[in-house]
Amino acid sequence: MSLISKLIVKPGSKIRLADVDPDFHGPYKSEKDAQKHLDQQSASISDLQKKLYAERKHSLLIVLQGIDAAGKDGTCWHVLRSMNPQGTNVHGFKQPTPEESSHDFLWRVHPHVPADGNVAIFNRSHYEDVLVQRVHKMAPGKVIEKRYDLINAFESTVHSNNTTILKFFLYISPEEQLRRFEERLDDPMRQWKISEGDYSERALWDDYIKAYEAMLNKCSTDHAPWYVIPANHKWFRNLAVGSIVEKTLKDMKMQLPKPTVDLKEIRRKYHQAKKEKL
Amino acid sequence: MSLISKLIVKPGSKIRLADVDPDFHGPYKSEKDAQKHLDQQSASISDLQKKLYAERKHSLLIVLQGIDAAGKDGTCWHVLRSMNPQGTNVHGFKQPTPEESSHDFLWRVHPHVPADGNVAIFNRSHYEDVLVQRVHKMAPGKVIEKRYDLINAFESTVHSNNTTILKFFLYISPEEQLRRFEERLDDPMRQWKISEGDYSERALWDDYIKAYEAMLNKCSTDHAPWYVIPANHKWFRNLAVGSIVEKTLKDMKMQLPKPTVDLKEIRRKYHQAKKEKL
Repeated sequence: MSLISKLIVKPGSKIRLADVDPDFHGPYKSEKDAQKHLDQQSASISDLQKKLYAERKHSLLIVLQGIDAAGKDGTCWHVLRSMNPQGTNVHGFKQPTPEESSHDFLWRVHPHVPADGNVAIFNRSHYEDVLVQRVHKMAPGKVIEKRYDLINAFESTVHSNNTTILKFFLYISPEEQLRRFEERLDDPMRQWKISEGDYSERALWDDYIKAYEAMLNKCSTDHAPWYVIPANHKWFRNLAVGSIVEKTLKDMKMQLPKPTVDLKEIRRKYHQAKKEKL
Repeated sequence: MSLISKLIVKPGSKIRLADVDPDFHGPYKSEKDAQKHLDQQSASISDLQKKLYAERKHSLLIVLQGIDAAGKDGTCWHVLRSMNPQGTNVHGFKQPTPEESSHDFLWRVHPHVPADGNVAIFNRSHYEDVLVQRVHKMAPGKVIEKRYDLINAFESTVHSNNTTILKFFLYISPEEQLRRFEERLDDPMRQWKISEGDYSERALWDDYIKAYEAMLNKCSTDHAPWYVIPANHKWFRNLAVGSIVEKTLKDMKMQLPKPTVDLKEIRRKYHQAKKEKL
């Protein structure tokens, strides 16, 4: 079974996160063991994104969700480091501003979907409205329940513009989260980020798992599937996400636009210009 | 004399591009010779951008101009490869859309200036309106002439929000441009980009030089200086731009925000949680 078919949440199926091992790292023993594959992948993604940008027929939207410290920022870096920054954009969705809150929950998201030829990453997304809002009961149960359908319809609209949507749930264990929090405590560059909430939210771990499972089970669709990425090992998380991005771009079977000019004629002109030092 | 003071267009001075050597590569013999400096620079810029993003008091706007094939895209890659993509954005300004043309020339630019803590790069910019528009007489001389002042006032407004503005004119020779055009001819990934205009615009080289000189002489201000970057050698172009970006970020004397929580107390809680396997 390929990595991709192992990690996808099959539309219509019911996933239980307890059945997923966040420590999973495929056939690789270590980062060193996977390095060659990671390097090949970067080179391949780099070429594919150039074609995507040149052809301007498809676009790619990547949605990242995961509990605090699951590695959303690191995943953005990894995916984008091989791409031309001009054709890419990351948008982080934090607590809504008053203006955002005074609109429907998809209003602030829609402007950031990628244009033809582009790649956009949502670092958190419209799914916050069925995650933190559900866990903290910030909206009535009925309202939350309706949002899953609204999200599916919204993603279908976006998909209708040749936008391929990939959604990655980065899954770490509570022990790994604690280990990462402790690392932050010792890193002067990151101490400012630490909040009381980091720790107190851990008490709601099981509620979050339930909310994640509802999101995965209700919103993994043919046009916008969810993937559960075992993310305790950062290098495996990168490799898994990269593999899915690479395969997805390849499947678009993109063609570079044909040259619009007579290359021979241009070559002749250049040759002449050099001779005459123009 | 430092590299920076050599490359800056001193506000109020008159620069002649004929006096600048696009082949200049400072004290370095080759890319290999500069590699260590380039690596140090990347590591330093990476740290500084993390501070910029954390502090959220300053922002940085980088404006790139240069003739076709001068290396604007490559410069974007180089500057951004060491930065967290979440805090950065590149915006390319192409031929204005009908909606853009139906507004003043700064209307399409303003929304893309960086927010506190962010870095934005303009790949081409509002300066197109005093470059291509001047060379091709797409607006009356009087209108163009007034734009220099309007640009200075606009950049002063942007600067008033703690946005540091760096403007880089990437300067290559006509021979180097021709060499790069020829490279494109032989690269299947880039042949689609070649247009008749690439070549025909070369006939207007002297007019472009005059327009660039006017831009450099009228719009290099204390709050938004222009730098002329000798760009025949890509590695030196990257090193020069990187040096100025690094120095500029350092001069902001950024401070990481103080932790908002009692780190000792958090550490104690984590320790307890581990013991009790919470």
